[in-house]
Parts: sequence; C-alpha cells; structure tokens
Amino acid sequence: MAQVTFSATSKKLPLGLAVESESRGFKLIMDEPKSLGGTDTGMNPVEGLLCALGSCQVIVAAAFALANDIAFSEFWIELEGDLDTDGFLKGVPGVRNGFSEIRTKMHIKTDAAPEKVEAFARFIEGRCPVGDTIIAGTVVKNQIVKEG
Amino acid sequence: MAQVTFSATSKKLPLGLAVESESRGFKLIMDEPKSLGGTDTGMNPVEGLLCALGSCQVIVAAAFALANDIAFSEFWIELEGDLDTDGFLKGVPGVRNGFSEIRTKMHIKTDAAPEKVEAFARFIEGRCPVGDTIIAGTVVKNQIVKEG
Repeated sequence: MAQVTFSATSKKLPLGLAVESESRGFKLIMDEPKSLGGTDTGMNPVEGLLCALGSCQVIVAAAFALANDIAFSEFWIELEGDLDTDGFLKGVPGVRNGFSEIRTKMHIKTDAAPEKVEAFARFIEGRCPVGDTIIAGTVVKNQIVKEG
Repeated sequence: MAQVTFSATSKKLPLGLAVESESRGFKLIMDEPKSLGGTDTGMNPVEGLLCALGSCQVIVAAAFALANDIAFSEFWIELEGDLDTDGFLKGVPGVRNGFSEIRTKMHIKTDAAPEKVEAFARFIEGRCPVGDTIIAGTVVKNQIVKEG
C-alpha cells in the first residue's frame, strides 16, 4: 500500500473558454478551437487526455524496457479518439459525451523479435495508470462551493 | 451524429522519462518527478489527466453558463486523485494501476441562488466529455509497429 494523492487546479481565464491549469508548479493552457467556440490558444481537454495517455504509455515503455529485456532507440505513439459532438454540444439523448473509442499505434525502433515486441505492447497497456483509469473507469466525486 | 476524431502524438525524448506530445501544433512536455524516476521537466501523465478533467469542466461551465441562466465572475476547480503506486511500479496483484478515486471542488463567484449553483454543478458533471470518458470508461485499442 503506497497511496499517493496527486493534485491540480484549473481556472477560467478572462478570455473566452481558455483555462489555465497548474500541477506542482507546471502550467498548462487549454482552450477550444474556433469551431468549438474557443479562441484556440491551446489544445482542448480531450486532446489533452490523449496526450496524457500517450505520455503515460511512453513513460511505462521507457521505465520498464530493461525489466522486459527490450532495448529501443526510438519510441513514439499516434493516438486517436472518436467523439460525437452531438452529446456535449447539444445533449442529444443516447449520445455519450465522451470518447466512444480511443486507438493508439505505438512505434518502436528495436532489434527485438516480433513476439517480444508484441508482449511488450501488452505489458505497456496493462501497466499504464492513465490507461487503467480510462479503460476500467474511475469514480469522480464533484462538489461546488459558492464564493462570496 | 457529428462524429469527430481527435488526435495527438507522444514521443520519448532523449533524456530520462521525458515525453513530448503534440496535438494540432500545440506541444506539451510530461515527465515524472525524481521520486518516480524522472527528471521533473513537466507534470506527469496522471497530473495531466487531472488538468484535462479540470479544464473540461471549466470549459463546460463557461460555455453553458448562459443556457443555465447562471452568471459568474470567477470559476476555478481544485482536483485530487488517489493512486496506489504499488500497482504500476511493482505490479502487486489486486492493486489497480490507475486512480481509485478522483475528487473535484468547483469554486464559483456568483450571485445565483444556492439551489441554482448546485444544479449547475450537476449539469457540468453530466456534460463534460473528459469526465464521461473517465467515469463511464472507454475502450482503448493498442497496436504496436516494429520500425526498421
């Protein structure tokens, strides 16, 4: 048992839909493109979610390559997620608001045998914290505080 | 039906566990703190996930305030997520690798009545695409390509 609590804050900026988030001093601006009502000053939150997933898988690959007896010179991932905007934009019943499916394509430059590469991919998908949060689903408890 | 496919790429940087992600030209560095084996050049992916969720909830609040007959002068969110690092670091059986629970505390500066504020919070949690992806869970299909 090694419970850790991670934290962040997100604050609406004065302009349009732009949001500044911060975690441990690292800052991140997200916004929406003009087609979704924003001013396009940063990637949007669902794109940010894809980046968090891709980063997490890359970090798992880098951190556990040795333990999996794999050496690679390059590792990168392409990610895609499908979302029906009729959900969150219009609230159409029966349309979910989030991603219906996410796909990743990992690219690895390695001399390792194909079976070993395939096993490594299964290890990465099984061990990634962001992937597990999304795939298995996680309870989110929200509360609101009215400020004076 | 207004299906949109969002995309991103994540690439391992030469140094340690650092990863550069990109979506629509917007770039984002993630890394791990030294305590988790990284070089601390950016927030880590689970912190990035919290920022994506917080940004998404803020954007939903800003975009749908008028439709919910709510006016606010400020809106910010504190987020926390609990994670047992025995999962992804050690692969301890029965310990999940992702967040076991995420909590958000929304702060709103408004003159609106408390019941209206509470209803607005429920609207935000119900409409947020990143929240829906996490709460309901989403299939992630991974493939790997061995590069020459």
